[in-house]
Amino acid sequence: MAQDFALITRDVPPPAPGEVQVRNLFMAVDPAMRGRMSDAPSYVPPFALNAPMEGPAIGEVTASNHPDFKPGDLVFSRLGWREIFNAPAAALEHRDRDALPPSAYLGFAGSTGLTAYAGLIRIAGLREDDVVFVSAASGAVGSIACQIARIKGCKVIGAAGGARKKAFLLDTVGVDAAIDYKAEPNLTKALAREVKALGVKGIDVNFENVGGDHLQAALALANKHARFAICGMISQYNVTDAPTVPKNLTMLMTKSIRMEGFIVLDHKDLEPQFMADMIAWHKAGLIRQAETVHEGIENALTAFNGLFSGDNLGRTLVKLGEPVHV
Amino acid sequence: MAQDFALITRDVPPPAPGEVQVRNLFMAVDPAMRGRMSDAPSYVPPFALNAPMEGPAIGEVTASNHPDFKPGDLVFSRLGWREIFNAPAAALEHRDRDALPPSAYLGFAGSTGLTAYAGLIRIAGLREDDVVFVSAASGAVGSIACQIARIKGCKVIGAAGGARKKAFLLDTVGVDAAIDYKAEPNLTKALAREVKALGVKGIDVNFENVGGDHLQAALALANKHARFAICGMISQYNVTDAPTVPKNLTMLMTKSIRMEGFIVLDHKDLEPQFMADMIAWHKAGLIRQAETVHEGIENALTAFNGLFSGDNLGRTLVKLGEPVHV
Repeated sequence: MAQDFALITRDVPPPAPGEVQVRNLFMAVDPAMRGRMSDAPSYVPPFALNAPMEGPAIGEVTASNHPDFKPGDLVFSRLGWREIFNAPAAALEHRDRDALPPSAYLGFAGSTGLTAYAGLIRIAGLREDDVVFVSAASGAVGSIACQIARIKGCKVIGAAGGARKKAFLLDTVGVDAAIDYKAEPNLTKALAREVKALGVKGIDVNFENVGGDHLQAALALANKHARFAICGMISQYNVTDAPTVPKNLTMLMTKSIRMEGFIVLDHKDLEPQFMADMIAWHKAGLIRQAETVHEGIENALTAFNGLFSGDNLGRTLVKLGEPVHV
Repeated sequence: MAQDFALITRDVPPPAPGEVQVRNLFMAVDPAMRGRMSDAPSYVPPFALNAPMEGPAIGEVTASNHPDFKPGDLVFSRLGWREIFNAPAAALEHRDRDALPPSAYLGFAGSTGLTAYAGLIRIAGLREDDVVFVSAASGAVGSIACQIARIKGCKVIGAAGGARKKAFLLDTVGVDAAIDYKAEPNLTKALAREVKALGVKGIDVNFENVGGDHLQAALALANKHARFAICGMISQYNVTDAPTVPKNLTMLMTKSIRMEGFIVLDHKDLEPQFMADMIAWHKAGLIRQAETVHEGIENALTAFNGLFSGDNLGRTLVKLGEPVHV
């Protein structure tokens, strides 16, 4: 895969009229980028060949040729995978540099945070007494989903692969029970054991990031009228032969389960409420950024590949520069 | 399987105080009974061994020892698989013998009708311009779902197995397009072809009775934000080895599909509105009972097995007697 990427150095001219120059501080990598590297039909177009990769980034304005932006402004863009760039003002969004640390806008206060928020609050209709099962719970979205569910008063069981991730869930993210699925010969039995240990009947909400045997375990342990927010099925993205599919879909009927896929783009209207909640929760010390930071654009591909090899804890970021205007 | 059943003849005494004696006119068999023949956990308890089978029946009161019932009353019970029986009044429900023919209360105006109605109206949130795909469309529930969807102004594609069922869909049930899945090497391609022939983009609603490759085809052809009412997965009930599962569940995310299993028991509150609609639609000639009638209780098992061998068209009933009070 490395042979498909090239690191190119170019001079960046001063911004043209209407343009703004930005130095990125952080860029983020996420699994959805994998989808855009194939030309299968999807909700976003594939990446173009021989063009810079796109992706969420937070940066600082260094020069501006547009009245809405001034040097020192913190801006969000989808023009990651580059250190310095010029862009039309319309490609940039202001972020409050005083409310949160810059990287938070790529994490709990960014689209991964909104994904967790929309999935739990709107799709699953989270209620205070719910038992919530989160797969890929140590990941970018999962680690925020766990925290939101606990802030809302729910009991949370998180699954992740490896002892290091399990410890991260228990010690850093904060869950009521954690499963290291790699250490479990049978994930359904492991989930049943944790459900029993918590003294609950089953799970009411599944925040699904993995699919396959994780979805199967969630179906097996679901309570009647459980709601499944289907955020991702990372176990299926790199599969070219027969995908692993849950063998117990008939549970949908016997337990009257609702399963709903969603993409964050459809839930942008939640953003004001979401941002207000996140800033308030951060101020109250209730939510924290769980992140893995790689240094320098030359490590962007390593960061990206780490998403699939299972090295990442929380949101995977690449640090591209230090703020100049402090 | 026949060796697991016995036809027993017993004398039926006069009804005790508080009891009513009923001669059944029709009993119905349905695939859900298969589930109750195993002791897997479900929403209804399994059938008891060495006891009469239960099931929906419509009958006529022959003698009564309870003030709410008099000879000639038409009554619904869950005490099918018997010709004459005594039951406490609480086990019987009155039905209007003038509004509809008796067998309709086991069909479009019975629980199969309510299943179709609840699945489309409440679970799928049927809208006038929806394209609806119904699997097992020639079956008891499917044949009513097709009719309700068309009454509501939708375009309907029905799938069923065999040329006879396909003709039944087109000629008797009434659909915009019919697929004989047994004649199609690839059901997804067949559905794509019918979608194209109808001049539509894809399907908005799936009324799922079959599961497996039918569900896979529905996922493949679903429009964005499609709603799937998961009523049954008959392809999976008699499967003891690995079930056939859809390989494209990731469509749930890419198309933001909502998939919801349901059981009719949870939607009894719709009954008054449902019954009023059905009687009005019947009076207007918009809905018809699609039924296969077997004669005599000695053929009840043949009728039941026909549900799985694919012999049945519409609701499968066993005629147990003629009305005496006309």
